[in-house]
Amino acid sequence: MDPTPPTADWQSLAKSKRDSVFANIPKDWLLPAYLTSQYTETSTLSVIDVPRTCGLLSAKELEITEQYDATELVQLMSTGQLKSIDVVTAFCKRAAIAHQCCNCLTEIFFDRALARAAECDAYLETEGKPMGPLHGLPISLKDSFNVKGVDATIGYVSFIARPPASTNSTVVDLLERAGAVLYVKTNLPQTMMTADSHNNVFGRTLNPHNLALTAGGSTGGEAALVAMKGSVLGVATDIAGSNRIPALCCGVTSIKPTASRVPFAGGVPPGRLGSPSPIVPVIGPCGRSIRDFELFLKTVIDANPWTLDESTLNVPWRSIAPYTRPLRFGLVRGCKQRPLHPPIARALHTTATSLKAAGHSITRLDDKVPELYASALLACKFFSIDTSATPLAHISSSHEPPIPSLAGSNFPELSAWTPTLDELWSMNLERAATCRAWRSVIVAEDLDAVIMPGYQAVAPEHDSYGLPVYTVVQNLLNYPSGILPVGNAVKELDGAFVKEGEVCEPTYNPDISEGMPTHVQVMGRPMMDEELLQIMGEVQRVVGA
Amino acid sequence: MDPTPPTADWQSLAKSKRDSVFANIPKDWLLPAYLTSQYTETSTLSVIDVPRTCGLLSAKELEITEQYDATELVQLMSTGQLKSIDVVTAFCKRAAIAHQCCNCLTEIFFDRALARAAECDAYLETEGKPMGPLHGLPISLKDSFNVKGVDATIGYVSFIARPPASTNSTVVDLLERAGAVLYVKTNLPQTMMTADSHNNVFGRTLNPHNLALTAGGSTGGEAALVAMKGSVLGVATDIAGSNRIPALCCGVTSIKPTASRVPFAGGVPPGRLGSPSPIVPVIGPCGRSIRDFELFLKTVIDANPWTLDESTLNVPWRSIAPYTRPLRFGLVRGCKQRPLHPPIARALHTTATSLKAAGHSITRLDDKVPELYASALLACKFFSIDTSATPLAHISSSHEPPIPSLAGSNFPELSAWTPTLDELWSMNLERAATCRAWRSVIVAEDLDAVIMPGYQAVAPEHDSYGLPVYTVVQNLLNYPSGILPVGNAVKELDGAFVKEGEVCEPTYNPDISEGMPTHVQVMGRPMMDEELLQIMGEVQRVVGA
Repeated sequence: MDPTPPTADWQSLAKSKRDSVFANIPKDWLLPAYLTSQYTETSTLSVIDVPRTCGLLSAKELEITEQYDATELVQLMSTGQLKSIDVVTAFCKRAAIAHQCCNCLTEIFFDRALARAAECDAYLETEGKPMGPLHGLPISLKDSFNVKGVDATIGYVSFIARPPASTNSTVVDLLERAGAVLYVKTNLPQTMMTADSHNNVFGRTLNPHNLALTAGGSTGGEAALVAMKGSVLGVATDIAGSNRIPALCCGVTSIKPTASRVPFAGGVPPGRLGSPSPIVPVIGPCGRSIRDFELFLKTVIDANPWTLDESTLNVPWRSIAPYTRPLRFGLVRGCKQRPLHPPIARALHTTATSLKAAGHSITRLDDKVPELYASALLACKFFSIDTSATPLAHISSSHEPPIPSLAGSNFPELSAWTPTLDELWSMNLERAATCRAWRSVIVAEDLDAVIMPGYQAVAPEHDSYGLPVYTVVQNLLNYPSGILPVGNAVKELDGAFVKEGEVCEPTYNPDISEGMPTHVQVMGRPMMDEELLQIMGEVQRVVGA
Repeated sequence: MDPTPPTADWQSLAKSKRDSVFANIPKDWLLPAYLTSQYTETSTLSVIDVPRTCGLLSAKELEITEQYDATELVQLMSTGQLKSIDVVTAFCKRAAIAHQCCNCLTEIFFDRALARAAECDAYLETEGKPMGPLHGLPISLKDSFNVKGVDATIGYVSFIARPPASTNSTVVDLLERAGAVLYVKTNLPQTMMTADSHNNVFGRTLNPHNLALTAGGSTGGEAALVAMKGSVLGVATDIAGSNRIPALCCGVTSIKPTASRVPFAGGVPPGRLGSPSPIVPVIGPCGRSIRDFELFLKTVIDANPWTLDESTLNVPWRSIAPYTRPLRFGLVRGCKQRPLHPPIARALHTTATSLKAAGHSITRLDDKVPELYASALLACKFFSIDTSATPLAHISSSHEPPIPSLAGSNFPELSAWTPTLDELWSMNLERAATCRAWRSVIVAEDLDAVIMPGYQAVAPEHDSYGLPVYTVVQNLLNYPSGILPVGNAVKELDGAFVKEGEVCEPTYNPDISEGMPTHVQVMGRPMMDEELLQIMGEVQRVVGA
């Protein structure tokens, strides 16, 4: 399948692809070389302020890209107070700058986006009404989504030879129908199964807060772009934390909804299709506001996605009344194999304390729920049941090497494990017992949601993230879960949370962590995505995030 | 597991179990031997009228068991116009008579039911309100449901040694909470994977309309009991047609909802747990009226079943407005490997013609949907992926023989097939393609529902049902689907539907079929169980069933 033409080595193919993408950035939007030469994966620079300081964006463009969330932008465009062409231009420009800082994009199609924005503006003018609930809104997409006419290599050199997509992913169709404007796709890891968004086609996405640290993965390009305010709303996927890990690394907000509410069909799979694993990948948004997530989810689900993708649950989006009672939270503080770094322990403590002060209740669950490490190990077994190891074949067929982080992204316990049909039955029983235990605790304690870390640390150094112990359990359980930023690592404050003698993995280095975003994860009950959004909104309000 | 004590052979164990159950029928409710001696599996007698003619039921008991549906009975009991003790007594008595006619029961617990009925009556009197939406209502259950304190052998001799159930199935808990009164469990096939409700513990359930014909399976005892009006509402399971096959054989109404809406936990599995098959068993009601099905489903789903069984979808029951527009039906007329017998062709024709005359539209789908035979073959592969063949081990551990119908209930194509993990991936792809094709047609034709046969014939002779080609596709697709009776086989009328030269399986014999109930199957869109009930109600109204 897709053999590399024998006339070109993988390095040339990759460079040529990279160059052709980069050529889509207008010359006027290029940063000077004296700046970009500093933006390397070993630099500890923050590039978060570059869009504001580089001088390429006008005051109006800064306002457009910084002052609003998607909901407000749509409202301003739908009422003619802003033009889509101006909004899209501003985000294209800022995305181009972000890319030059932290290498977050894969495909760039600004021309087409600007033409589409003009179409939206014309529609509003001639029809007197907006195109839809996302009228004129620029939305960025992970590279694994298909956009008709645009490549989708997902970072495999062997996929460069494939023709551009001939159809849209289902969710892309629905976004466009709702009036959205697509303008970029974003970077991800080779195989999509590591937490470093790094591949041999597009290189590595760097964390905009500290280029020497990971942006997370697999939707790392998206989170970096959103953190740079080069996108107001991005679309990600998540099977082990892929929409939550980058969010917590880059200090943005994201949510993994319950599986199969957002149609998954029509994307580019990094591996083999037809998996009998009960854990399925989930599409969700990342961005700046919880109400934007509702805008996204409601828009997609109101469009009756089952009619386009039969693997979607044919379940309507529910409008729910705001909570007027105190909320009941469970609290999971850690996992003994991956103890919390002090900045995350503090963020969790601050969140719990603030929630209590606001009148909500907190119940500690650590001894009551199944061990997170064992659940993550089980989940990773389910990810390893392709006896033909398709992703590795996608890599080797072009002779490109595996990326370094792949080595650390699986359990050492599984290095000699081979899956069998018989064991799959046992794994399903183990999963059922895990789901039963969590449900029992949540019901017995009558919890609305659980707060817990999404990772034991702030964004670690490249290729050191390790196992997604705190994010994959929600995929195993199929519970919706979101990430909220909660302040930043501050070594003097974090010091109070140091536990003498505790061995952290990766190693806790307060100097490297300093200033990096900290986070909390909020997990809801299955199918109660509607409630989870409200609850996340309340947590955000309470912690002042 | 559960080895047979070496001191007893399987025949003695089975007889002793059977006798102990039968001893729970009060002496006053026994039919005379001159009658029961005629009720054999080779007799072509109809026993449908025996409850009315045998003289054991009072006029009031006949009225209670014949004149109302569950909805009306609950309403009469909840307002004190009927007492639960009288209603339950009447149904216990009629169930006892039914059992003596067609061997439909497994467990009989009348004493406990009468005590519970008295409790319901007392509750209404002292509290001034009913116990719940099923106040005082007798409900019968397939033997595979667990009722605390009651055996659940599911027809395996090896299970006789097991202690009585120590807990209720989740759905049983919910029914009791809602005020229901449980009084009997009903017969089913050894392994639950054939269409003859026959096992070596309880023997064979006979079709009450013609004892020489099958009652269907796997929920055959339930359908026979409902046909005899010994139950007003029964609870069944369905993974290949188990709630629909008996209904169409016995001339009653049933529905298989979308999977995982009714909690499945806590029953007795006939095979191994932890299957990676995407086809899961589904609980649904059988009975006399569509509104009773809504009463059942709404009651169970309103009780928030996810809180008790995490494998249940946490999705509320929707109240929907009645349709005021004409409905759009697809029509599937057959499957070339299993052409329709004339009585079923006529029933389908009558239904389609009546629906058109009532203003609804009918679109023929035969050439547009995936071949039913191939879909059924695929489904049966999924049922055969237990490499340890657990049901056969349950049989052989007591040295009982397999029942005769097991031989004919699987595809000859699969006789030498052995499952592998690798093939499971391919099977999932084939299933995905099948689901995609059906969804595409249903959306392209904008259909509300599809009418089709549930089987190619009326109830056939014992052990000749064969493959569930027309019912398993809805399990493969996970579409909700129900059975409605549509008249009876009448050879003079059916003659017009004979196609010269067409070979039927089983053989069409107009004399044996004469007078047997005919049916139509109505299939809805996934998760639109609410809509399907309304649509079934309209079909029922239109065909005057």
